[in-house]
Amino acid sequence: MGSGILRLILRKPGLAFVGAFARRSERAGMDAGRAIGLDHDLGIDVEADLAALVARTRPDVAIQATCSTIKEAADEITTLISRGVHVISIAEEMAFPACHALQWAEKIRAQAIEHGVGVLGTGINPGFMLDFLVVALTGVCSDIESITAKRVNDLSPFGPSVLTSQGVGLTPEAFRAGVEDGSVVGHIGFPESIHMICRAVGWEFERIEQSREPIVSSVRRQAAFVTVEPGRVAGCLHTATAYRNDKPVIRLIHPQQLLPALEGEETGDYIEISGTPPLRLSGSPEIPGGEATVALAVNMIPRLLSAGPGLFTMTDLPPPAALLGDARALTRAP
Amino acid sequence: MGSGILRLILRKPGLAFVGAFARRSERAGMDAGRAIGLDHDLGIDVEADLAALVARTRPDVAIQATCSTIKEAADEITTLISRGVHVISIAEEMAFPACHALQWAEKIRAQAIEHGVGVLGTGINPGFMLDFLVVALTGVCSDIESITAKRVNDLSPFGPSVLTSQGVGLTPEAFRAGVEDGSVVGHIGFPESIHMICRAVGWEFERIEQSREPIVSSVRRQAAFVTVEPGRVAGCLHTATAYRNDKPVIRLIHPQQLLPALEGEETGDYIEISGTPPLRLSGSPEIPGGEATVALAVNMIPRLLSAGPGLFTMTDLPPPAALLGDARALTRAP
Repeated sequence: MGSGILRLILRKPGLAFVGAFARRSERAGMDAGRAIGLDHDLGIDVEADLAALVARTRPDVAIQATCSTIKEAADEITTLISRGVHVISIAEEMAFPACHALQWAEKIRAQAIEHGVGVLGTGINPGFMLDFLVVALTGVCSDIESITAKRVNDLSPFGPSVLTSQGVGLTPEAFRAGVEDGSVVGHIGFPESIHMICRAVGWEFERIEQSREPIVSSVRRQAAFVTVEPGRVAGCLHTATAYRNDKPVIRLIHPQQLLPALEGEETGDYIEISGTPPLRLSGSPEIPGGEATVALAVNMIPRLLSAGPGLFTMTDLPPPAALLGDARALTRAP
Repeated sequence: MGSGILRLILRKPGLAFVGAFARRSERAGMDAGRAIGLDHDLGIDVEADLAALVARTRPDVAIQATCSTIKEAADEITTLISRGVHVISIAEEMAFPACHALQWAEKIRAQAIEHGVGVLGTGINPGFMLDFLVVALTGVCSDIESITAKRVNDLSPFGPSVLTSQGVGLTPEAFRAGVEDGSVVGHIGFPESIHMICRAVGWEFERIEQSREPIVSSVRRQAAFVTVEPGRVAGCLHTATAYRNDKPVIRLIHPQQLLPALEGEETGDYIEISGTPPLRLSGSPEIPGGEATVALAVNMIPRLLSAGPGLFTMTDLPPPAALLGDARALTRAP
């Protein structure tokens, strides 16, 4: 993700690339252009000491794209904030940090305000398809009974670490054991999306129930990094349901699997609201997650710089917009 | 629209109805409940003197829902602003007032800031389907070549004034004459939507071309207020295209007609972006315009009250969200 983000920043007028930090120390000392697979140097080396890098280069904004959890992201984010750098994070838990780490989120909010910077979590999911877009669509409703949003994607572009996290290639028994021991993770971000939706519309909810079921393949599914034989697991059907007054009011469904088309399932994004008026919106194939997250991280730069200090979720700021003009012209004084 | 808005306000916790103004003086003195078709009094009469009404009732926010153009809306809006009342307008031209009335918009912005209030134009279209939602979807793109958005609706719920403005029932010749003399208007709001999209993404454009073509019916189309015989006009196919470097980059299409299903055309909303990544999103039937505009006008109240003073378009504020909790709890200090 970091490579995609840097490639995009290099192409966007009004954005200047001033430094690259890599958590993996074997990257330190490499030219950043080489590190992201360009065939030429950028003249800026990847560094392993974030505080020193920031002190020397004094960036306006940093895009933090190194991990999924707040636990992993916290040190980098506080290092950046305390040095007066705005932060856009694509760590899934940063989409709504108060969900998993309420006290930390309040500390970060105070720290951000103290140092006059904004902090935002974004990404396709959580951050856009199953939360921001759902919220925006509720805007045309005067009442809502329930919300269902589904994202069906294809894991074939992804590498071994993602495939492992979805249990791809396992037996159904090993999948269930993996869910138990935490090695089969499914999607990270459902509680964040549910919190974001509920806070935006003013719903309180009692609980979230999640389930992770194996998608057992009836056919051979072959991709670059893995082959799934019939009877083995092609992916994880992860769902989350939020209950309010003991009724399911939000249902988020995200089956992530290898090549669903081989068994006739189309990929796509689907939002359905039972309300006044009822509405359905969908698109197929699914908006590609990697490209979209890269774009969102960069496109939100002017939005965050215009927002003033604080800790923000995607529904706290004006909508994302493709950054097609000069980023400086699209940034207004908060 | 005013009736629908008041009915919704009456149902929403945290909102109190304090006064009703009617431009049509024959409504003045009626109980507001009766005026909107309730079977009981609300104990608040409709008034014809807006300044006196505001001075006495001192509302936080007014929803201005009396007209389509800035020319018609201007007096009411300035009366409200100058008395310290936040304003949400559903006048189509208020969706992006700088488009038709740049100097007036700058004056209103300054006046709003002077009096510490926010002013917002909203509605389903312009304001949401063909602009806000388009902008939000561009947020997942790193580059865009062109945008096409289409809204196919059914005019059968609408009354004579809307049907006349779309040329329903005319001969094709009379339709063309009506376009010439301005009696066949088509959709109001394409330039506003195009300005909103272009400003959000940072695109400059050279010109907008609009066309209004008759939709000639091959079948008999019968609705409550009108019957269209074969050979007559069932509605107006209105399109607007924005050009950039002499290429069409935004194309908005809005055929408004009676009962399109009778000739096999589904109603619906369609957004297609040619870009990186390409994307399509659609929903059928179309989000009903009247209900959605009513909901947006009310749902934006907490968003506007949280925004601080200024003149806003829908893409300047956080996304709309259904107002399902207490409106006061959803309003934050700006």
